[in-house]
Amino acid sequence: MSIQRHEVGPRMSKAVVHGDTVYLAGIVAESAKGKSVTDQTRDILGQIDALLAKAGSDKTRILTANIYITEMANFAEMNAVWDTWVVPGHTPARATVEAKLAAPDYKVEIMVVAGK
Amino acid sequence: MSIQRHEVGPRMSKAVVHGDTVYLAGIVAESAKGKSVTDQTRDILGQIDALLAKAGSDKTRILTANIYITEMANFAEMNAVWDTWVVPGHTPARATVEAKLAAPDYKVEIMVVAGK
Amino acid sequence: MSIQRHEVGPRMSKAVVHGDTVYLAGIVAESAKGKSVTDQTRDILGQIDALLAKAGSDKTRILTANIYITEMANFAEMNAVWDTWVVPGHTPARATVEAKLAAPDYKVEIMVVAGK
Repeated sequence: MSIQRHEVGPRMSKAVVHGDTVYLAGIVAESAKGKSVTDQTRDILGQIDALLAKAGSDKTRILTANIYITEMANFAEMNAVWDTWVVPGHTPARATVEAKLAAPDYKVEIMVVAGK
Repeated sequence: MSIQRHEVGPRMSKAVVHGDTVYLAGIVAESAKGKSVTDQTRDILGQIDALLAKAGSDKTRILTANIYITEMANFAEMNAVWDTWVVPGHTPARATVEAKLAAPDYKVEIMVVAGK
Repeated sequence: MSIQRHEVGPRMSKAVVHGDTVYLAGIVAESAKGKSVTDQTRDILGQIDALLAKAGSDKTRILTANIYITEMANFAEMNAVWDTWVVPGHTPARATVEAKLAAPDYKVEIMVVAGK
């Protein structure tokens, strides 16, 4: 089965397509790095939209999501952005746990798998 | 490839089927919320049995499992329930790490992917 | 779709093949248990090479990786080993978060999914 990679770096790729399944990297904020949980979550979900488009998918076809937040106290703030972004009737399986991330400026990281 | 969702909520779905692969949400205890690790693990594995049945799979066909426990001191207690639940010869790939979960009443969360 | 399991134990299997997709368990150091992050990461990646070979895959076909490290201070040391191991042009999607692992002797755990 064919494998196609997008935004391929020396350490990881941002998106990997295997047949009809799209694996995205754990995405953290870019321009909103160091900003609020709301801003970071919006930034992340925008990047996910763009990566899914490159890979031939979209947010109506997300299968599963792993969300990492650095403080569970920010759960509601992250969810408020998530809940308006997901598409009714097309919500993925999901788990959210608390974990420290690669740099203190990151408060949220989201990793999804989608179908094409 | 077709996507079917079960127990679809506004934030997430409990089970998503993509072709022959079933993605379940991270499952936490329902009736055993706030109770012992043994009780919570039994509750979770019972929910997983029911969700896999809805999705056309069962515990002999689990491919991989991610287990989150809030204190690694509870590893043995969780495993004692897990070990009697899995089917000899059909055990999945698995990783268990320590992480805080969405509410203090939850001590265990389990997320599995299964084949149909 | 067929399921084949390798190194099947009573609690988990080290590798599970579902059609063209290979799920490995979260791998921790064996002989390098208790040693440096460099030694543990090399040990883990060597085990992953061997398991992928058993499952009919290899590191050029890894789709996604979840890396857990017990202290984010060790991120650079783990990455130094990872970066020389992955194959240019074939890097997987990846997420790294901080989490306590099953025993204090383990500083790194890596779980991958690969294509056949």
